[in-house]
Amino acid sequence: MKIRDVVLTPVAFADPPLLNVMGVHEPFALRSVVQVVCDDGVVGLGESYGDAAFLGEVRKVVPELAGHDVFDLPGLKRIVTRVLAGTVLTDEHGLIGGFSIRKTIASVYSLFEVACLDAQGQVLGRPVVDLLGGKARDAVDFSAYLFYKYGAHIGAEADSWGEVITPDALVGEARRMVEQYGFRSIKLKGGVFEPEQEIEGIRALAEAFPGHPLRIDPNAAWTVDTSIRVAAELDGVLEYLEDPTPGIEGMARVAAEASMPLATNMCVVNFGDIEPAFRARAIGVLLSDHHFWGGMRDTQALSVLCETFGVGLSMHSNSHLGISLAAMVHVAAATPHLTYACDTHWPWKTTDVIVPGVLEFVEGAVAVPDKPGLGVELDQDALARAHEDYVRCGLTKRDDVTYMRSYVPDFAPNTARW
Amino acid sequence: MKIRDVVLTPVAFADPPLLNVMGVHEPFALRSVVQVVCDDGVVGLGESYGDAAFLGEVRKVVPELAGHDVFDLPGLKRIVTRVLAGTVLTDEHGLIGGFSIRKTIASVYSLFEVACLDAQGQVLGRPVVDLLGGKARDAVDFSAYLFYKYGAHIGAEADSWGEVITPDALVGEARRMVEQYGFRSIKLKGGVFEPEQEIEGIRALAEAFPGHPLRIDPNAAWTVDTSIRVAAELDGVLEYLEDPTPGIEGMARVAAEASMPLATNMCVVNFGDIEPAFRARAIGVLLSDHHFWGGMRDTQALSVLCETFGVGLSMHSNSHLGISLAAMVHVAAATPHLTYACDTHWPWKTTDVIVPGVLEFVEGAVAVPDKPGLGVELDQDALARAHEDYVRCGLTKRDDVTYMRSYVPDFAPNTARW
Repeated sequence: MKIRDVVLTPVAFADPPLLNVMGVHEPFALRSVVQVVCDDGVVGLGESYGDAAFLGEVRKVVPELAGHDVFDLPGLKRIVTRVLAGTVLTDEHGLIGGFSIRKTIASVYSLFEVACLDAQGQVLGRPVVDLLGGKARDAVDFSAYLFYKYGAHIGAEADSWGEVITPDALVGEARRMVEQYGFRSIKLKGGVFEPEQEIEGIRALAEAFPGHPLRIDPNAAWTVDTSIRVAAELDGVLEYLEDPTPGIEGMARVAAEASMPLATNMCVVNFGDIEPAFRARAIGVLLSDHHFWGGMRDTQALSVLCETFGVGLSMHSNSHLGISLAAMVHVAAATPHLTYACDTHWPWKTTDVIVPGVLEFVEGAVAVPDKPGLGVELDQDALARAHEDYVRCGLTKRDDVTYMRSYVPDFAPNTARW
Repeated sequence: MKIRDVVLTPVAFADPPLLNVMGVHEPFALRSVVQVVCDDGVVGLGESYGDAAFLGEVRKVVPELAGHDVFDLPGLKRIVTRVLAGTVLTDEHGLIGGFSIRKTIASVYSLFEVACLDAQGQVLGRPVVDLLGGKARDAVDFSAYLFYKYGAHIGAEADSWGEVITPDALVGEARRMVEQYGFRSIKLKGGVFEPEQEIEGIRALAEAFPGHPLRIDPNAAWTVDTSIRVAAELDGVLEYLEDPTPGIEGMARVAAEASMPLATNMCVVNFGDIEPAFRARAIGVLLSDHHFWGGMRDTQALSVLCETFGVGLSMHSNSHLGISLAAMVHVAAATPHLTYACDTHWPWKTTDVIVPGVLEFVEGAVAVPDKPGLGVELDQDALARAHEDYVRCGLTKRDDVTYMRSYVPDFAPNTARW
């Protein structure tokens, strides 16, 4: 089944002022939506990053795809590799680890691989999960993804979540999320305040939600010594500690002391990082992400790799829409070794580009769509509106740092600052 | 698509008196053929071991499969795991490494996984290679698999290959195989004679076939010191040295000294062996085999694992028929990281259970069948004859040792004997 046309649409959607080590989320998050149109009219969908640098690389590949067979994924990889020829994309926000040629190829390839698998599933009449080996589980567990946040964007009215700085506000945010979605695991995006304040937040969550597994992710904001100290203070409280400190070597030093496993989506971000990290026993949990690990099939191989070395697997999330969630659900459902609830930013958005009703959270889990392909349908009107928002918002890259200076003029991001 | 019936047929086919460290091949090799009959009449094919112990475990699983969906491979794995409940199969011939619950489950599961994938492909109208991610190559390279051999089975007339003991005879065997199939790589099954004699054989092959990559596999017949000495003597002559000595520790000691990579299908035979072997840097090439590595999908994951740790990949072979060759070709074609020509015993057999004409060797390679599923068709008459041979030959397990004593009454197998 040959590709006739590829339609790439950058989109933007409203995002609350969520805080992290690099600053604060801007009023809009950017994504790209791809429609791979096949010669028999089937349209495969994909979703990924929306910054200009990524879009630029994707646009180089688009004209090369006409006439390519959607079943020829190795050929797709060859095309992407050839066209990108040594390009290294740097994601400016700096929250998903190092950059490399390999990661760049993996990211661009992934967008098209997902769309091709969606098209394959549609023409074969099978859900994508079946093309990946079948359902290891009927529904995929997600975690509540808590953020410290400001009450409102600059010049805007407060959003419905309000300001979340204090432990009480954090518990309130968690309560709303847990009640609405049924999440069990709860993750706090940290690295925003001094570790003591974030430890206090975690303790408040532990008290308010007994039995709910807890995680904190300071995005490498701490030194090795601070990480070891925090790990000791939260002994018995956390299911895992995510990226406390930068780099494989630092993580390995923390891992040797911490009682809970260390998780990462920063120091192990492509297959080239695996050997040094595993040899150093730096991590206990890998946060996979098909968007930058080379697509759905490579994510499954990554899972076997982790299982083989006794490393747990969960799933990382950036701000995303429904096509990405559908892809995450299919690959997670087809991956037997998935040992923790996956991350998702889903509750933080208010719009989407897909027809609603397919991806519903029940007790914190999303059932695998059983329709052919990814099982989600593009809402062309919603896509047009999201593209208008993209044009109107004027953003072309994620820059939490600069936007943070609207709130804190002298703000400077700095890993291992505490 | 539900399974309606499963037909398991043990078969035997004539096998020449090929020599190895454990003795000599008996007059018949045993295999099992499975037909997974689905409710719409599609029949998926699988092929694996034919010894009584393996058949016994497979027979326990068969009655549990009625009504199972062929797309539900994780469910199939659960059924096999439950039914086998801690069984450890020991392959008496001792040529494919250690035994474990995990390897037993992987072996039995693999037989059915292949048949389910064949059925999936047929109902979807796509070759199995497409269900595995698509063709990374159009044809799969195989190597010439040379054996020292006796001229005839006990009480039988000489076969067409005659006795192969001397270097000249070895070159003659290789020449026939290379001329008929177009193989480039040439592998010698060693461990039969003293290392000096086998080195002499390899040198004769190197002289007769310049530019053809050479391998020798003594099935762990040598001590560490002998292995290091042979490796030094064959420096620059071998593309890899396969299983010179037993065990991961011994292999690691040889690997530290040898100039060529060490390959194995004996010391790393399931995912549990990977971490110790890779940490010890014991091997440079893994000989995968979907029959005992848990099927086609796990073999692909294994390839990513090897690529990640800088380990090459090739493919091991036992005596087999056309269904197994088709499966090997599909999984090899869908596996980008396959760095050496695969092994096959194909030239040593004279009959098959499939309709001929699909799997042809051209310049040592077999093109991936492009028909739906595995692309091979069972010849029911040939299957019946092969089953009759199974019944008539009276063999129920492979026992090269005992049969060798018909030729050499005091023969005793012994790894690391030299």
